[in-house]
Amino acid sequence: MNTEEVAKKVVELTRKQAWHEAVDTLYDKDIVSVEASGMGGQSPEKCGIEAVRGKADWWINTMQVHSFKVSGPFVAHDRFVVQYDVDVTDKNSNDRMQMSEVGVYTVKDGKIVREEFLPFAG
Amino acid sequence: MNTEEVAKKVVELTRKQAWHEAVDTLYDKDIVSVEASGMGGQSPEKCGIEAVRGKADWWINTMQVHSFKVSGPFVAHDRFVVQYDVDVTDKNSNDRMQMSEVGVYTVKDGKIVREEFLPFAG
Repeated sequence: MNTEEVAKKVVELTRKQAWHEAVDTLYDKDIVSVEASGMGGQSPEKCGIEAVRGKADWWINTMQVHSFKVSGPFVAHDRFVVQYDVDVTDKNSNDRMQMSEVGVYTVKDGKIVREEFLPFAG
Repeated sequence: MNTEEVAKKVVELTRKQAWHEAVDTLYDKDIVSVEASGMGGQSPEKCGIEAVRGKADWWINTMQVHSFKVSGPFVAHDRFVVQYDVDVTDKNSNDRMQMSEVGVYTVKDGKIVREEFLPFAG
């Protein structure tokens, strides 16, 4: 798949919240995944498809999703951007939160090799 | 300025369409600026602040701007993203067009060293 095809597939699968299918079919085994900040003192940068699968599991287990809006993709060369606007409740703390962020993805040989998540700071 | 300060300044100045002030105050002299495609067979990648100033001049001289919406910024580490939704008429062709794209910017030592523009492909 070229960058645009991968990008559209990410939009399609995240709209369905099909996290495992996205990881299994679109991610390179050596994916580097970068959050704005690490949780609990961990590094914001995770390496490898198992780490990304772990993040997906954490999200699915932790969040009650009220709405999940996916916008995009924006595509050029080996890069694409998707915007996520979510309304979730953390099942542990019972805190409800609305978050907007973009994912900046890099594609190589038809697989996502890097993703960076940037929260709204407006 | 840190990444978030540069990002907010980009949003502030592009909302005012203050292109020259943005280039003069926020861009590194060795900026690399990448469009989705090059115009007239040119490379999509331009290097140096003079080339970026030339792009700003071209935009100002060519486009009649009906509306120019700036959303963001989204910020993490050395990277930020801004979304542009524009409605313009090309003064040469008289074609009116609505375009959405994001800019992905990289900051180093308080200056923008790289920008990539990704059009909406949804």
